[in-house]
Amino acid sequence: MNLFLPAHTLEKKHLLSISDLSVPEIEGIFQTADSFLDLSSRSVRKVPSLRGRIIVNLFYEASTRTRTSFEIAGKRLSADVINITTTQSSVVKGESLLDTVRTIEALGADGIVIRHSSSGVPQWIAKQVGCHVINAGDGLREHPTQALLDLFTIQKRKKNLSGLTVAIVGDVLHSRVARSNMIAMQMMGMKVRVVGPPTLIPREVQKWGVEVFHNLREGLEKADVIMLLRLQLERQASGYIPSIEEYSRLFGLSPEKLSWANPDAIVLHPGPVNRGIEIQGEELFSDRSAILDQVHHGVAIRMAILYLLMAGGRPEEENRAPA
Amino acid sequence: MNLFLPAHTLEKKHLLSISDLSVPEIEGIFQTADSFLDLSSRSVRKVPSLRGRIIVNLFYEASTRTRTSFEIAGKRLSADVINITTTQSSVVKGESLLDTVRTIEALGADGIVIRHSSSGVPQWIAKQVGCHVINAGDGLREHPTQALLDLFTIQKRKKNLSGLTVAIVGDVLHSRVARSNMIAMQMMGMKVRVVGPPTLIPREVQKWGVEVFHNLREGLEKADVIMLLRLQLERQASGYIPSIEEYSRLFGLSPEKLSWANPDAIVLHPGPVNRGIEIQGEELFSDRSAILDQVHHGVAIRMAILYLLMAGGRPEEENRAPA
Amino acid sequence: MNLFLPAHTLEKKHLLSISDLSVPEIEGIFQTADSFLDLSSRSVRKVPSLRGRIIVNLFYEASTRTRTSFEIAGKRLSADVINITTTQSSVVKGESLLDTVRTIEALGADGIVIRHSSSGVPQWIAKQVGCHVINAGDGLREHPTQALLDLFTIQKRKKNLSGLTVAIVGDVLHSRVARSNMIAMQMMGMKVRVVGPPTLIPREVQKWGVEVFHNLREGLEKADVIMLLRLQLERQASGYIPSIEEYSRLFGLSPEKLSWANPDAIVLHPGPVNRGIEIQGEELFSDRSAILDQVHHGVAIRMAILYLLMAGGRPEEENRAPA
Repeated sequence: MNLFLPAHTLEKKHLLSISDLSVPEIEGIFQTADSFLDLSSRSVRKVPSLRGRIIVNLFYEASTRTRTSFEIAGKRLSADVINITTTQSSVVKGESLLDTVRTIEALGADGIVIRHSSSGVPQWIAKQVGCHVINAGDGLREHPTQALLDLFTIQKRKKNLSGLTVAIVGDVLHSRVARSNMIAMQMMGMKVRVVGPPTLIPREVQKWGVEVFHNLREGLEKADVIMLLRLQLERQASGYIPSIEEYSRLFGLSPEKLSWANPDAIVLHPGPVNRGIEIQGEELFSDRSAILDQVHHGVAIRMAILYLLMAGGRPEEENRAPA
Repeated sequence: MNLFLPAHTLEKKHLLSISDLSVPEIEGIFQTADSFLDLSSRSVRKVPSLRGRIIVNLFYEASTRTRTSFEIAGKRLSADVINITTTQSSVVKGESLLDTVRTIEALGADGIVIRHSSSGVPQWIAKQVGCHVINAGDGLREHPTQALLDLFTIQKRKKNLSGLTVAIVGDVLHSRVARSNMIAMQMMGMKVRVVGPPTLIPREVQKWGVEVFHNLREGLEKADVIMLLRLQLERQASGYIPSIEEYSRLFGLSPEKLSWANPDAIVLHPGPVNRGIEIQGEELFSDRSAILDQVHHGVAIRMAILYLLMAGGRPEEENRAPA
Repeated sequence: MNLFLPAHTLEKKHLLSISDLSVPEIEGIFQTADSFLDLSSRSVRKVPSLRGRIIVNLFYEASTRTRTSFEIAGKRLSADVINITTTQSSVVKGESLLDTVRTIEALGADGIVIRHSSSGVPQWIAKQVGCHVINAGDGLREHPTQALLDLFTIQKRKKNLSGLTVAIVGDVLHSRVARSNMIAMQMMGMKVRVVGPPTLIPREVQKWGVEVFHNLREGLEKADVIMLLRLQLERQASGYIPSIEEYSRLFGLSPEKLSWANPDAIVLHPGPVNRGIEIQGEELFSDRSAILDQVHHGVAIRMAILYLLMAGGRPEEENRAPA
């Protein structure tokens, strides 16, 4: 372990919001994630750092992608990972959220990774329990590990984050991914634009120092990074967009529209992609796309978060498995 | 292992009913559970006793709480734990229960933890398979590991079980938790009362040497332990209770009603709690409540059961992982 | 490891179709499976061959039996196994199959075990990803690990496969199990008959060198092995069979009908059995039945496949867990 991993620690108990982190802390997370990527490339798939620790993935919204990413991250750190999703949980029986999380802690959880459709739930839980809490997406508010893996992916491609221009395209209004990224990108010195129809851009966004575009061509001009957001198709029914076809025509990215941005601009998307809507074209722009890199880096970022929150600072002896 | 764990063994193959156990056996289970609690407090979260063993949680009724408790217990003993629940199982395809359990055994299961809505299923299964069977709740009949964790929790708080007066409050008629506890508590020398409306107290209960109260105040007087049962809300529809509100007013526990019992009386509930029905008041009576202790001790009790049934008596060599 | 396991390797990346394998390769798989059975009987339940490797069970059709068999096989090889089933997956969100498998690979999967209702999906996926792909059943096409475990089970009982006469009874038309077995059995020198009503026997079958019988008595005469297929009960609605009762009367196996075959004929069924339909009689023909052997051998066969595809040929060092 000590041979491989850097000595970063995160003097925190929880990861609730991207704004809890300082720039040096984000850089420390990236260096730790890098060392896990490096280990993995040397076929060291598993490290014993969290052996005996129990991580509970408590998901009140379905998300195979994020849940599996945390599950693999936990297992590669040798933790035992327990999945609890609403459909199979005793939440069915009407137990309150407070009782559920206290029960999970009493069962011996060392960390709870929570996704919930209500904004602020992870913050509230963190005050109720003694174990680590990691926000895996709360309502329309934040998704900090997604922002970290997005920035990490951009840095891997572009070397420096500072000075880059990013265009976040789509349903900014309902996107916790956009919200966490806007905060994080500005912290790292990036220039942030949001691009979409007026109905999908929140009014407050201008106060956040972000440029607003309602025209894709203008929004992409000189952009280094294009971050597409997933369109929740049910937004059409609620009147936020006139039609999927029109949205796709105006804001979907095609190889041709991609040429409106800088020639080396890269494309991100948090997934899952609605093919033919946010993106047209089978190949997802081949090497211009960083979408699979995001997935790959997500595991390393989540390993880094779990490691720094849960193993960092513990005496070496505790890291060892019992004889 | 030998440094930590006591040399208790349980000369049994299965845990089907609380009445299969003798008083010394229950005491041995408690001492074993204590040693697992002690290990855990010294950050030894995982022991290799059941490494390579396969435990299948076969749940025909949803129960995140009990299933997760057994899953964590198995994993802390280094077993591989497989969850099979009715919703995702081939039970869907109409396979008979007999074929299902024989298939699970043929897949290599060393132990089956079963919950089923029909009384007697674990006993019947135990005759059909060669592997260990643990009853995690069968119909209205028994829930022996719950009774063990309840008694263990009471003992931790009260030191001695013998001579204590316990009031079991609520839907005794439909409660396997009550049934297993009434047997176990009398074995350990406790005085048992049941408290509830006549429709929810089975007639046979008097034969079992248990006192019956239909008035909560009388039932709680001089009680050392109050064990609240979960009210199945669907019982109202079937006519067992006139209204949830009336039940709650007459038999729900509030801080005021708690004062009717002994000043140091503790409160238990198997969970999940229907807040506002069985219990009124946000704080669950703070230090008078042992509800989270029950959850915490449940893992240790289930580790003890799995360990004593499945690892006890095996030659030391078998306990070792292959080189 | 090297003390126990034979030095077989499989010079392949995937297992997609039984016809990808040569006779010596099948024999090598059987010898490897044998060594895992042997280890298991010596209480060596777990070997470290795939420690740190990630296997994803990606099931687009429910199958507890096959999924659990692969899960146990993977865990006994010390791999981390992740289950993704359609009901809980982001497939719900409309993600394309291509994006799903590329995402799973980017998450770090070393192997994908896939079941899908469309024929040819595993072959197509194998061309899209860099990790190992194992076909766990595709549409009406193939189920190669089932055929391998069936042949392995027959060989264990009959010593030699060559020259045996097998009667495959039932819904051959819709059975990938039948299809994979017909290929494999002929490769191993067995004489194959199919038995069933004309509506359930595909016309092409005669071209495959297989004898067709529409009368059970004639089909069973001098058979050494009877392989019953599972009747999909929904086939009645679609008109393939007139009535379940008539099917059962004509093609269901009873102890009496079993006497029409050779006196030492054995009975196989891929499970789950529809009791009273494919089979009449509680005891499943006791020692004449190899049905539970099939389940037991299935784990060993799948361990062999995973081991030979994923661990075979890797330098010894990589097999080791990190220090």
